[in-house]
Amino acid sequence: MDPERPLDALNAARNKRVIVELKNKSQILGKLKAFDIHINVVLDEAEEHENGTMKRRIGNAFIRGDAIVLISPA
Amino acid sequence: MDPERPLDALNAARNKRVIVELKNKSQILGKLKAFDIHINVVLDEAEEHENGTMKRRIGNAFIRGDAIVLISPA
Amino acid sequence: MDPERPLDALNAARNKRVIVELKNKSQILGKLKAFDIHINVVLDEAEEHENGTMKRRIGNAFIRGDAIVLISPA
Amino acid sequence: MDPERPLDALNAARNKRVIVELKNKSQILGKLKAFDIHINVVLDEAEEHENGTMKRRIGNAFIRGDAIVLISPA
Amino acid sequence: MDPERPLDALNAARNKRVIVELKNKSQILGKLKAFDIHINVVLDEAEEHENGTMKRRIGNAFIRGDAIVLISPA
Amino acid sequence: MDPERPLDALNAARNKRVIVELKNKSQILGKLKAFDIHINVVLDEAEEHENGTMKRRIGNAFIRGDAIVLISPA
Amino acid sequence: MDPERPLDALNAARNKRVIVELKNKSQILGKLKAFDIHINVVLDEAEEHENGTMKRRIGNAFIRGDAIVLISPA
Repeated sequence: MDPERPLDALNAARNKRVIVELKNKSQILGKLKAFDIHINVVLDEAEEHENGTMKRRIGNAFIRGDAIVLISPA
Repeated sequence: MDPERPLDALNAARNKRVIVELKNKSQILGKLKAFDIHINVVLDEAEEHENGTMKRRIGNAFIRGDAIVLISPA
Repeated sequence: MDPERPLDALNAARNKRVIVELKNKSQILGKLKAFDIHINVVLDEAEEHENGTMKRRIGNAFIRGDAIVLISPA
Repeated sequence: MDPERPLDALNAARNKRVIVELKNKSQILGKLKAFDIHINVVLDEAEEHENGTMKRRIGNAFIRGDAIVLISPA
Repeated sequence: MDPERPLDALNAARNKRVIVELKNKSQILGKLKAFDIHINVVLDEAEEHENGTMKRRIGNAFIRGDAIVLISPA
Repeated sequence: MDPERPLDALNAARNKRVIVELKNKSQILGKLKAFDIHINVVLDEAEEHENGTMKRRIGNAFIRGDAIVLISPA
Repeated sequence: MDPERPLDALNAARNKRVIVELKNKSQILGKLKAFDIHINVVLDEAEEHENGTMKRRIGNAFIRGDAIVLISPA
């Protein structure tokens, strides 16, 4: 299925593991549980990664949309 | 319960201890008392941490939403 | 009283001394006289502090909301 | 008179000399002639100061609100 | 066909390979699948490039509009 | 005439030479031809100045409002 | 014809060659094909220039408005 709108692509990723890249350069990996039109997202089983290695386990993470650059499958 | 929307996850964290990561790199730990759609938040018994050590006790803290990157359980 | 909404916490701080931390790293201390939904605030008897020492007396200070990171009791 | 809202404080400063601190660290001193809800302001007899010394006379200055951090009496 | 409005040009690029340049200087190449008025975009078969060499394969990428500078044909 | 609102001051400057200071530190001098509520402005016979010397002639310049810090008479 | 509003000046530049200066300091030259109220623009036969020399040919370029500082005739 081709997404008609960008949020369709996020919807298709719900409950799947994604990488969220932040403007501050860190990467948060986790299972996408929720998002809204501001691209605020909630990840479950989240981990912060930097340069390919895990820095810390975060658990449940609410990320503010305007801190986000890119979301892709993990 | 899975959050349908990101703010549901913040609502579930109300009265629990959270870590609020800021764009300026500092972390504020405290009990989440209130939030709104701008992600302005109020923490109680708040402390500022940096690199894993407590820098200062803040007490009651109002944090402006656009300064926030990530909110997670403490 | 627990604040239901973040602005309730600012309302409870009216006429009390607060520390306003700015994105530019300086801290303004003063008595909170007014605020609005943009978190524009007015402080009375305001002083600018840096690294724990007072840099200058400001008197009455209008601070633009989007310059603010955090507001807490002084 | 206590300001109920932050813009009341700006209104009380109309036609008085103020210091406008900018995000780019410079300070503009001048007589406050006009402002609006975006905190765009107009100063008359304006001067740019840096580290306590006058850098140049500007005359009439329109300052865009989102460049402003703080406005206080001169 | 000349685009009347900028989004017409993005519409004409749908399903074609594009380069998306980000404010953080990296370039994401991929097939444009979706976009909206915020210029949030979704790319398929996406790759991150830096200084002309591919850094990593991303697959499906949601890019937040406000992180984007420029979109052009690959 | 005292400006009631900040845009009145810009209106009074129409067809006069102004200095537009940008967030990126450069100064654009030129005759103010048009502006809008976002403070997007158009200058005619515009020149870019840096540290008091002219860097280049621009001619007709459209400047996006959010890049602007201050507008004053040249 | 004097532009009444800033977008009139962009309209007059349609199908002419312009220089678009970006907040990231690069310059994009090309023929202005489309723009909107956010100052999103589309250029044709676009080239990226830096310090007066061409860095690369871009062809058709969609530039997000908030990345733009200034648009002028090439």
